[in-house]
Amino acid sequence: MSLVTVGSVAFDAIETPFGKTDKIVGGAGTYIAYSASYFTKNQKIISVVGEDFPKTTMSDLADRGVDLEGLQVKQGEKSFFWSGKYHNDLNSRDTLVTELNVLETFDPIVPASYQDCEFLMLGNLTPSVQRTVIERLKNRPKLIAMDTMNFWMDIALNDLKETLRLVDVLIINDEEARQLSGEYSLVKAAKVIMDMGPKYLIIKKGEHGALLFGEHQIFHIAALPLEEVFDPTGAGDTFAGGFMGYLAQSGEVNFKEMKKAVVAGSAMASFCVEKFGTERLENLTQQDITARMNQFKELTYFDI
Amino acid sequence: MSLVTVGSVAFDAIETPFGKTDKIVGGAGTYIAYSASYFTKNQKIISVVGEDFPKTTMSDLADRGVDLEGLQVKQGEKSFFWSGKYHNDLNSRDTLVTELNVLETFDPIVPASYQDCEFLMLGNLTPSVQRTVIERLKNRPKLIAMDTMNFWMDIALNDLKETLRLVDVLIINDEEARQLSGEYSLVKAAKVIMDMGPKYLIIKKGEHGALLFGEHQIFHIAALPLEEVFDPTGAGDTFAGGFMGYLAQSGEVNFKEMKKAVVAGSAMASFCVEKFGTERLENLTQQDITARMNQFKELTYFDI
Repeated sequence: MSLVTVGSVAFDAIETPFGKTDKIVGGAGTYIAYSASYFTKNQKIISVVGEDFPKTTMSDLADRGVDLEGLQVKQGEKSFFWSGKYHNDLNSRDTLVTELNVLETFDPIVPASYQDCEFLMLGNLTPSVQRTVIERLKNRPKLIAMDTMNFWMDIALNDLKETLRLVDVLIINDEEARQLSGEYSLVKAAKVIMDMGPKYLIIKKGEHGALLFGEHQIFHIAALPLEEVFDPTGAGDTFAGGFMGYLAQSGEVNFKEMKKAVVAGSAMASFCVEKFGTERLENLTQQDITARMNQFKELTYFDI
Repeated sequence: MSLVTVGSVAFDAIETPFGKTDKIVGGAGTYIAYSASYFTKNQKIISVVGEDFPKTTMSDLADRGVDLEGLQVKQGEKSFFWSGKYHNDLNSRDTLVTELNVLETFDPIVPASYQDCEFLMLGNLTPSVQRTVIERLKNRPKLIAMDTMNFWMDIALNDLKETLRLVDVLIINDEEARQLSGEYSLVKAAKVIMDMGPKYLIIKKGEHGALLFGEHQIFHIAALPLEEVFDPTGAGDTFAGGFMGYLAQSGEVNFKEMKKAVVAGSAMASFCVEKFGTERLENLTQQDITARMNQFKELTYFDI
């Protein structure tokens, strides 16, 4: 079934204790797309770049089954650019630069060929832009998932809540879940947030794994204990891409499938952090992914 | 097989956002003993109390199969007393009062009848006192587990390292693992710490579960997502008691059994936090415990 991915396709400049990059390819949409492409070759992207965005990357995505008809290229303009510096523990980071550029006036195009969309992944973006995409689809997709961040809770909470009412799955981290709900307990937070709209909620906890809530059940997946996290940029988006890619390939929407999809997302995220940017995501095999998913099984399985 | 439990038997006074207690029964040894007693009726305690410690509690422990011959009662003296206040998130706490009292001059007695000890649980105490117990056992137990805390890393690191060399299992939390090893990554921390002596390491992560390292394997158990943590006092000790109680009952020492023991410990800890002090631990049934362990299975199980 088709997956439509909405999110920034952009440049990042990243500094970690291990090194520094100049402008490299990044953006939520890019990470989601690369990640999902290992599960489905029927993916279509909605985004916008400037004339500075490398054609090689666009061809690479197209070769991986990502339809670029909804990727606007604005002549005479520049792509979104973010620059950040991670602290020594790799957990927190400072934003050094944010240049919205083409994102500032982004009006998402939904091409006619995208109208058969069954699975819609709204990567982190302005909530009103995410909502516009939903409204421009004539038929409601089978499953709509949305990522967001505390930035939108701070400056556009009403817009965010309006968009939340329309989606099936919200994917956020624990800090954001607490801020959005006003509750410290993640169980209480989940109740409050699911009352806002989504039937399913994924709370990402970084090195502590993730929780999936839905159908009156809770599932926890551990994060793979790693010797080193090289670059965490895009890990959350990669998770989302693996999650939705897996579901789009499966076609089924229920808690049992979502558990597997969460494991798939976690596996992909664990690859993402091994190298700078999207490098690791460009070089995986199906065996790599299967083996990594099995590692999660070995990590958590017990008999009682 | 017999379990010998070493740890403080004491008074606590606890304040949480939910309420306050006067002096209630507490102490690492007490929590370990109550918890382990659900798995084994062949438990023996080594500790010291003042004349102020309630005989009713001592009888209660005896009724649960805890041999008290190694529990010294010092006439004219007072039991160890700790008072703490938890912050609103229930995660961190301030110590308001620590009165060592009888613990100040604690010289552990190992009665002759304790010499058949197969499983030894050294609850958090002065490292040199923990080591003295090991030295006073003529035959090395099948398994020695030790809990400690950052306080001893600050003021008695050499003593701690000497004791560590003699044990099989260390149980600490993630902050302590980082301090002891000098590493941020828990995988790296585990390597450093296991080089200090223990073949197995359990890193407790509070609401984020726990990691078990050993035999070149890693196991992660999630913490049960709770609506409310009423009182976290003693949860770590309760975990240790469930872990060692399970193993003493099983008699087997290998990674597979330890995984089950970690689940048992986590189940017991999840009961402990439901009420003040040891109250919940005094009123459990075997069905409660089995049902709770099954909840961990439901929380984490997936097919891929």
